[in-house]
Amino acid sequence: MNELKLPFGFRYAATYAGIRRDERDDVGLIAADRPANAAAVFTRNIVQAAPVQIARDHLQSSGGKISAILVNAGNANCATRTGEQVAMASCRAVAQHLKIRNESVLPASTGVIGVELPPHLLTNAVPTLVEALSPDGFESVARAILTTDTRMKTASEVLSFSDGTVTVAGMTKGSGMIQPNMATTLGFVMTDADLPVGFLRDTLTTGIAKSYNSLTVDGDTSTNDMVTLLASGAAPCKLRTKDKRKVGDAIGRVLQSLAKQIAADGEGATKVVEIEAIGFRSDDDARRIARAIANSPLVKTAVAGSDPNWGRILAAAGYSGASFNPDRIDISFQDVLVCRNGLAVELDEAALKTKLDSHEISIRIAQSGWGKGSARFFTCDFTEGYIRINGSYRT
Amino acid sequence: MNELKLPFGFRYAATYAGIRRDERDDVGLIAADRPANAAAVFTRNIVQAAPVQIARDHLQSSGGKISAILVNAGNANCATRTGEQVAMASCRAVAQHLKIRNESVLPASTGVIGVELPPHLLTNAVPTLVEALSPDGFESVARAILTTDTRMKTASEVLSFSDGTVTVAGMTKGSGMIQPNMATTLGFVMTDADLPVGFLRDTLTTGIAKSYNSLTVDGDTSTNDMVTLLASGAAPCKLRTKDKRKVGDAIGRVLQSLAKQIAADGEGATKVVEIEAIGFRSDDDARRIARAIANSPLVKTAVAGSDPNWGRILAAAGYSGASFNPDRIDISFQDVLVCRNGLAVELDEAALKTKLDSHEISIRIAQSGWGKGSARFFTCDFTEGYIRINGSYRT
Repeated sequence: MNELKLPFGFRYAATYAGIRRDERDDVGLIAADRPANAAAVFTRNIVQAAPVQIARDHLQSSGGKISAILVNAGNANCATRTGEQVAMASCRAVAQHLKIRNESVLPASTGVIGVELPPHLLTNAVPTLVEALSPDGFESVARAILTTDTRMKTASEVLSFSDGTVTVAGMTKGSGMIQPNMATTLGFVMTDADLPVGFLRDTLTTGIAKSYNSLTVDGDTSTNDMVTLLASGAAPCKLRTKDKRKVGDAIGRVLQSLAKQIAADGEGATKVVEIEAIGFRSDDDARRIARAIANSPLVKTAVAGSDPNWGRILAAAGYSGASFNPDRIDISFQDVLVCRNGLAVELDEAALKTKLDSHEISIRIAQSGWGKGSARFFTCDFTEGYIRINGSYRT
Repeated sequence: MNELKLPFGFRYAATYAGIRRDERDDVGLIAADRPANAAAVFTRNIVQAAPVQIARDHLQSSGGKISAILVNAGNANCATRTGEQVAMASCRAVAQHLKIRNESVLPASTGVIGVELPPHLLTNAVPTLVEALSPDGFESVARAILTTDTRMKTASEVLSFSDGTVTVAGMTKGSGMIQPNMATTLGFVMTDADLPVGFLRDTLTTGIAKSYNSLTVDGDTSTNDMVTLLASGAAPCKLRTKDKRKVGDAIGRVLQSLAKQIAADGEGATKVVEIEAIGFRSDDDARRIARAIANSPLVKTAVAGSDPNWGRILAAAGYSGASFNPDRIDISFQDVLVCRNGLAVELDEAALKTKLDSHEISIRIAQSGWGKGSARFFTCDFTEGYIRINGSYRT
């Protein structure tokens, strides 16, 4: 991992507001020096937390001009009597102390569902946060938003142009959010490029499809998921159309790095798994197959045990809903062909098992001579640690 | 569990054919004294094992007249070069020794996929099996078909009519077959009632929907799944239409008992969970919701930890694809209301946790005043044992 670079125009702060039981930072504030152009994507779950609803409203009513994000961990502020009041009050407190408009504040929450969040915990923390805002506070916020994550997840990229540099930096939280687990994902990406709201929206939509949505699946998301993209315009560069495209690509890479870090940090995970499906009738069919494999507990436990059990891969593809010819299927683990035309390949199983002890596992399923549909999915292995973490998360 | 009763007209035998590594019976034979009327349901996986394809063919070409079922554990006979030959040779051996037609033999297999099954292992075992056939061998077959199961699963029922009794008895295997795990399920149900093939087919279709398919889901099945229903007609009763209906109901109850035993014996499971969804727009919507809850690893780990985490239930319902009003949702664990109208209910959490230490857990999600759609699903909890079993099943 390269050293983290931060864009101009943003300040950050985190503190302990008393929401978590253990005393570590549980609330963070991201503030733009001047209203930033903004876009966001939200959960498609039918049950949506109050902060998600309010963030969507504020993004709309402000015309995509956002000055601050207030985020807390430890409580999802979802399915509670006072959810909306709590989120509104926290936005008002931020607006008051930063002397900005209510609707330029986005609230975000992650944590347990259905437990009332005492409103004063957030509002009381706001003065401390505003006081502490600093261009160097990025990582303190990146740490404050973590829940069952075992490590901080950040990524950045710097692009050089003739008149200066543009920086993109992002932070995310999520582990065990890998579908079908649907724990909350939050992602906050900032850039100092000067980019219009429409461009940010398109860039985020495209970038999410190839990153977060190749972990989770449209619709199969938690009540609180949210990824935002803010552009301060504080970089000294005047970007031409093709420069903007380069910045858009950099944003895509930052999103993909963040998503991969989530896969690698799946609850109890010891391995990150990349699943590639190629040669199917359509991208959609390939996606179904890659997703069914990524979601199969039998496949994920086999990966944990370094067992090249391709029968489970084939069977998962078989119930994915995609159509294919089983007699034309090749399956590889770590680029070692284990199944050709639906049948076992003779191989040195001990050597392959050793290769499967790696932290990065690749699985490829290909249909020969049938189509051009392809897809790529990320997941993690399934270990006993997953059960331990989730059996006792709340209590 | 009541004492097992067996129908007239069938004999059973099991032996060790050398397919499993450990020396316990791995092959079983069920033989009808005279050709029995038969129906069967098969996996909808696009990848189907050779014995499934041949059983389907034989059922069709024999016009539903079946004299024998040869079943093995330890090898699925799927995705191998010689699958069809092996299954055909084993049917031929049975036909020869029982002096019946090839197509009146149904083959069935369960075990690892993609490993060649040496044909002589099955054919060599046939003379021993035929020799050992006995009306009392039912449980020896029920034990021979088990794989990761921790216990034998059988059920029976006796119905009295004016001219005598009719008996229904079934055996099944499967654990961890609970969707999305898709390990193989086999089920063999026998009755001595005199019932036509069409009636058996209808009874099996209806019965499966309310039993096995409320564990797994249409299409999300393994490569080898198969449930058969044989009627010998050896009972002394002449059944009128309403008597037949009674026998059909008994068959349904036997299927449901077998399916519940599978749920209770999920790999590593310590609890069986019954999920009821009521008050939704349609049965289909209710089914989606019950299924999403049943399949959520977060819900299943919470149940293992006796944690009444209704937020995970609500969130799973929210991504199920069904539409509902979150503000009208009530959720109960063990008949204790924990969420009313989408909000937490004050309760004695310690007392509820104690109730959740039971082996039988009920979860109900209800929408008030919206619809009549309802569904019921069975599943099990998700423990560290599941991971242990599946991480090292093959190797």
